[in-house]
Amino acid sequence: MAASAKCLGKGSPAPGPVPEGMIRLYSMRFCPFAQRTRLFLEAKGVKFETININLKDKPDWFTEMNPIGLVPVLETPKGQVIYESPITCEYLDEVYAGKKLIPTDPYEKAKQKMLVEHFSKVIALYYKITMAKKNGEDTSVLEEEMKCKFTQFNEVLANQKSQFFGGDSVSMIDYMIWPWFERLEVVSLNKCLEHTHNLKSWVERMKEDPAVKATMSDLETYKGFYKLYLEGNPDAYDYGL
Amino acid sequence: MAASAKCLGKGSPAPGPVPEGMIRLYSMRFCPFAQRTRLFLEAKGVKFETININLKDKPDWFTEMNPIGLVPVLETPKGQVIYESPITCEYLDEVYAGKKLIPTDPYEKAKQKMLVEHFSKVIALYYKITMAKKNGEDTSVLEEEMKCKFTQFNEVLANQKSQFFGGDSVSMIDYMIWPWFERLEVVSLNKCLEHTHNLKSWVERMKEDPAVKATMSDLETYKGFYKLYLEGNPDAYDYGL
Repeated sequence: MAASAKCLGKGSPAPGPVPEGMIRLYSMRFCPFAQRTRLFLEAKGVKFETININLKDKPDWFTEMNPIGLVPVLETPKGQVIYESPITCEYLDEVYAGKKLIPTDPYEKAKQKMLVEHFSKVIALYYKITMAKKNGEDTSVLEEEMKCKFTQFNEVLANQKSQFFGGDSVSMIDYMIWPWFERLEVVSLNKCLEHTHNLKSWVERMKEDPAVKATMSDLETYKGFYKLYLEGNPDAYDYGL
Repeated sequence: MAASAKCLGKGSPAPGPVPEGMIRLYSMRFCPFAQRTRLFLEAKGVKFETININLKDKPDWFTEMNPIGLVPVLETPKGQVIYESPITCEYLDEVYAGKKLIPTDPYEKAKQKMLVEHFSKVIALYYKITMAKKNGEDTSVLEEEMKCKFTQFNEVLANQKSQFFGGDSVSMIDYMIWPWFERLEVVSLNKCLEHTHNLKSWVERMKEDPAVKATMSDLETYKGFYKLYLEGNPDAYDYGL
């Protein structure tokens, strides 16, 4: 089952057990939270299959599996189920060999998790601005707030004099925040990166990361998806297929 | 500096560096989130000192240290700062010897973290009900929701046939959710535990846990605090001292 398969909605038969030697990801092609997990899967070279879910018309077996009802969800051949993006990423990093993405030093790990916590403000602003734009409202105050948050993230890189947020190679924190940077241009928020020299350079470096390349969608596809999505059109999830 | 010391507010001089061999907790005596960290500190037998913060009138040095502005915050002799209760607890479990509170098995750890995520709905309901009661509003619908969540937590224990949420001894998940059970009676929500036989037995077992005993406040003290707190009285934090 490929990452680009059409999504399953209510009434779709439940998929069978996960094949041995494999892990299954329940995803939605354009979901930034599920992309966090996809980035970890790709970066660690994990063998996985993908089932995309119609989030506006979910199969019953999906909500039974994850009562919170969101993607990403991981399922193992033993039928173990793991959801919530930070939990799935930590699980993958602990279970699978390959590049370690979460620092083993407790304080370095805590620092990355605190940054993820700070970034939750950016995520909230991203959705507030998107909805405000849809409703034709003025977003200048919200955009100023976004710029202010980006300035703080820029300072982290500047103070650390590092290429990435966890040092000189990509690690958890970069993957946890990347999906919203990838989508900035889709909602015309690239201008919020003005005057953040270090952060802009980080964005360019991230675009060269193999896992980022493997999970990225192009601007036109995102725009097509968002248009249908904001109209509440259930075909949004299969846009371009 | 004792856990029962009066809180520091704006204008209070910054405390000096943390003594070697010690960790410092910035707390508020009645904060359930800070209690999570206190439970970990006590259960692991960590040598710590406490500085209570006036959360309605915070010292500038406190908001500089933690821009989110909340307790708990940990500070080490090296000046390392860790905040957000789940992050502080994980840090303590990884850095200090003593009883391991977080499972080492990745799936067992993930299961506990997913339960914490589910419990966030209970926390939200707890505050919604408290505010609604303060405003003299009807809380019956919210209380039904609370009962429904407690039924789900009851089922976890019943299905596992275990004494605690992580098995037959206290572990992370128990400490992460305990503080709100301790406060149920304060806001007259004990009745939401009706018909949850396993959960009620868990509450009784938790009351016997040494770390719970060490961090618990009595009902009258909580009631005195909440009364002042809901009135916006800044003396609330030092109630009873």
